[in-house]
Amino acid sequence: MDVKLINPFLIATKNVVEMMASVQVNAGQPGIKTDNRTRGEVSGLIGMAGEQVSGNMLLSFDQGSILGIVNNMLGEAFTSINDEVADAVGELTNMISGNAKIELNKAGYEFEMSLPVTIVGKNVEISQMSRAPILTIPFETEHGKFFIEAHLENKNKKS
Amino acid sequence: MDVKLINPFLIATKNVVEMMASVQVNAGQPGIKTDNRTRGEVSGLIGMAGEQVSGNMLLSFDQGSILGIVNNMLGEAFTSINDEVADAVGELTNMISGNAKIELNKAGYEFEMSLPVTIVGKNVEISQMSRAPILTIPFETEHGKFFIEAHLENKNKKS
Repeated sequence: MDVKLINPFLIATKNVVEMMASVQVNAGQPGIKTDNRTRGEVSGLIGMAGEQVSGNMLLSFDQGSILGIVNNMLGEAFTSINDEVADAVGELTNMISGNAKIELNKAGYEFEMSLPVTIVGKNVEISQMSRAPILTIPFETEHGKFFIEAHLENKNKKS
Repeated sequence: MDVKLINPFLIATKNVVEMMASVQVNAGQPGIKTDNRTRGEVSGLIGMAGEQVSGNMLLSFDQGSILGIVNNMLGEAFTSINDEVADAVGELTNMISGNAKIELNKAGYEFEMSLPVTIVGKNVEISQMSRAPILTIPFETEHGKFFIEAHLENKNKKS
């Protein structure tokens, strides 16, 4: 995956979280993920699938960051990761990937999104079966941290 | 998701496992999944994404079934779920979903597949964010059990 393709995910994440939750988001340094564990305590995963390119996007939130975001979004005062918080992670996954998709489609990467799944648990062992590097960006909020991972693989290119 | 759409997944699962691993597979009664835990100890998940329909397919194997299948497939004698076994789960997920896709495309359901992810762990809390029911089929082999879950949602239909 071309490193510059991470930018639509970065911008979409910042825009969606800041707009939906009025929580300021600061992006850290992008990198390549080399282990296979979830970074946060609740994660949202969605597939991207097209004739030429396919991949996945995963968002992983620590408890502080997701409670800050969801409580602001929904006007709630949740203190733990319950079903409603997990649902909101699914919604954020949908919105962020949908937002990034618009930009990637414009850049010639044609694909559709699958439906999000949410995974609750820290250090869950989840491996992405891709030949393409998995790009990751850490984000900081006043409530805690979260991470995005994304990769898109050209299906017709052997590597 | 129309209940009859589970059949391509059932047939694909039986064909791929029997052909690749020479392990006889008996399908049990299809049902609807109502909880959000993985049934087996290692799972493969893949997204299906089209303009009209999207969804996910998840395979979840107990340790006995996946070791029996992978050891037969690869001529190995693995005794635990290691990285190679997890990789093989990703491959099986790819092959089974690809096989089911051919039949579903013929039936007018147009979509592409994302890339598989594998999740290691029992009772992992994973929720599919779908309005469509999640159909599941248990399978038995001489080595143990595994399960398939699938759902496809019509994106344009509100329900």
